[in-house]
Amino acid sequence: MRVVIVGVGAIGGTVGALLALAGQEVIGIARGRQLEAIRDKGLTLRSPQGVRVAELPVVAAPDEIDWRPDDAVLLCTKTQDTEAALAQLRLAGVDEQPVFCLQNGVENERLALRRFPNVHGVTVLLPAEFVVPGEIAAFGSPCEGIFDIGCFPGGADEADRALAELLTPVGIAGFVTEDVMASKYGKLILNLANIVGAAMGREAESADVKALLRAEAEAVLTAAGIGWQEVGDADPRRQELLKILPVEGAASVGSSTAQSLARGAGSIETDFLNGEIVLLGRLHGVPTPANAYFTRLAARMLAEGRAPGSVPREEVAAALGL
Amino acid sequence: MRVVIVGVGAIGGTVGALLALAGQEVIGIARGRQLEAIRDKGLTLRSPQGVRVAELPVVAAPDEIDWRPDDAVLLCTKTQDTEAALAQLRLAGVDEQPVFCLQNGVENERLALRRFPNVHGVTVLLPAEFVVPGEIAAFGSPCEGIFDIGCFPGGADEADRALAELLTPVGIAGFVTEDVMASKYGKLILNLANIVGAAMGREAESADVKALLRAEAEAVLTAAGIGWQEVGDADPRRQELLKILPVEGAASVGSSTAQSLARGAGSIETDFLNGEIVLLGRLHGVPTPANAYFTRLAARMLAEGRAPGSVPREEVAAALGL
Repeated sequence: MRVVIVGVGAIGGTVGALLALAGQEVIGIARGRQLEAIRDKGLTLRSPQGVRVAELPVVAAPDEIDWRPDDAVLLCTKTQDTEAALAQLRLAGVDEQPVFCLQNGVENERLALRRFPNVHGVTVLLPAEFVVPGEIAAFGSPCEGIFDIGCFPGGADEADRALAELLTPVGIAGFVTEDVMASKYGKLILNLANIVGAAMGREAESADVKALLRAEAEAVLTAAGIGWQEVGDADPRRQELLKILPVEGAASVGSSTAQSLARGAGSIETDFLNGEIVLLGRLHGVPTPANAYFTRLAARMLAEGRAPGSVPREEVAAALGL
Repeated sequence: MRVVIVGVGAIGGTVGALLALAGQEVIGIARGRQLEAIRDKGLTLRSPQGVRVAELPVVAAPDEIDWRPDDAVLLCTKTQDTEAALAQLRLAGVDEQPVFCLQNGVENERLALRRFPNVHGVTVLLPAEFVVPGEIAAFGSPCEGIFDIGCFPGGADEADRALAELLTPVGIAGFVTEDVMASKYGKLILNLANIVGAAMGREAESADVKALLRAEAEAVLTAAGIGWQEVGDADPRRQELLKILPVEGAASVGSSTAQSLARGAGSIETDFLNGEIVLLGRLHGVPTPANAYFTRLAARMLAEGRAPGSVPREEVAAALGL
């Protein structure tokens, strides 16, 4: 199995660097300054396990790759960039190769299945951040990450087992599951708090806000008949495999949502996290005012270029009636 | 109710022109040469009912509109342009106003419901084509079109009735329905043939190809438990309200898919027509090789700039085992 990583950000970069460092066949598809930096001086991965520089082969687009039947695609873009990536992959000749969705939310698998027959979900527990072009920090120890891996919409196959066996020895513990979407819905519930930290700041008093978002989500998933599996602090694998430790030379900015706001990205993933709960609520008649508030707030912060952490608690509390 | 039409193409243009001609409050959001032409010399609508020039107020983007609570949004873009349109609408301040999806396929309602609470589906039976900037031809008589209108995911409300009452007197017979998606799935089945005509030409022998696409769709919808309602030639309303007649000065190019290929558009809607059947087939374990073949073919024709009608029957027959 040769691994092709679409989107060499914090997640794709960590996976790509670990595979390259172990001598595995891997190619990254990157853009702009990240592409240039990796070509010039490799990809530096800072983690509690040390500082390592990986020689990761990178290209700018899927049509620069001579695709093979044993390739596996690892989608590591944000959901709002998935459609464009899938269109490029199809035109480059990808067809029956497995497409693994390593992204947050639960929409990517559906987007991919519209175009490709062999789609897999991956729940990514991998605290990592983009530092500067060509440099990524991952905060997990002794492993950089834990992945749940399985077929979409359900089941598990040889490709899932092959990916898990490839990743586990390089520092990402892979667990094959017959119901990966239950795990991804569990991760979605955790990700509802991303925008809270991004909007109010990580130090703000927000436990009640996060609890409200979660309660809405649990009501919605229950009404929709969707099961979920706990992958947060209560997941026993975290204690053993994925303690979060400081990394020298890399101050953590926060979630992927906060990272997007901090670097003034053109889009934000909140519509596919809190927005997923809002959508399901509207489909199943369950009110989700708190998640709806945060999806609108995220769009407004992005449009107005507001900095992460700039929304006062009073503003949020007033809007949510807290 | 003031009507705001997002996307003044063949469908949006016909609706906008008919409302403007009747003195109803309507605004169009248009782009490029279409925007310029309408501003310069109005919007010309050629139909069996005559040639009429409408003074349709047009803007380039939602933020140029002073939105009112009694506005209704009519989305008339292609599905691949819906996300961007929705994001602009939200930032311009649209929130609880009804959003009507007049588009082909069944994905737009879901995309809209993620961002807006008040979403409606509209099945559009309205044979119309873009002629040149500022000019549209509609071929239906005595009405230009028939619309089924209802809430998404189901039901019907005051907004549906208000839109139907606004449209019926101007030439689009509006029918309010409690299950608009059944009607839209019926339309989807018809639209599976769009790519056949676009690829092979309208004169090609293709009845067996179209029957194959339809049989796959019916098997998939049955397996998925999705009901549909016939809106094709067997729909009795067509005989009475919507005969297709020639229009002077307007030669018909074909379906919206063929029109996209003919004008070298940057994208094509096949992924949301035949691709919807492919997606449902993969979710429910029903093979859909013919629909999958045409989604790949459409993407390739677009990428290679192949003209409509340029795919020989032998090529299609070989691929599908006919």
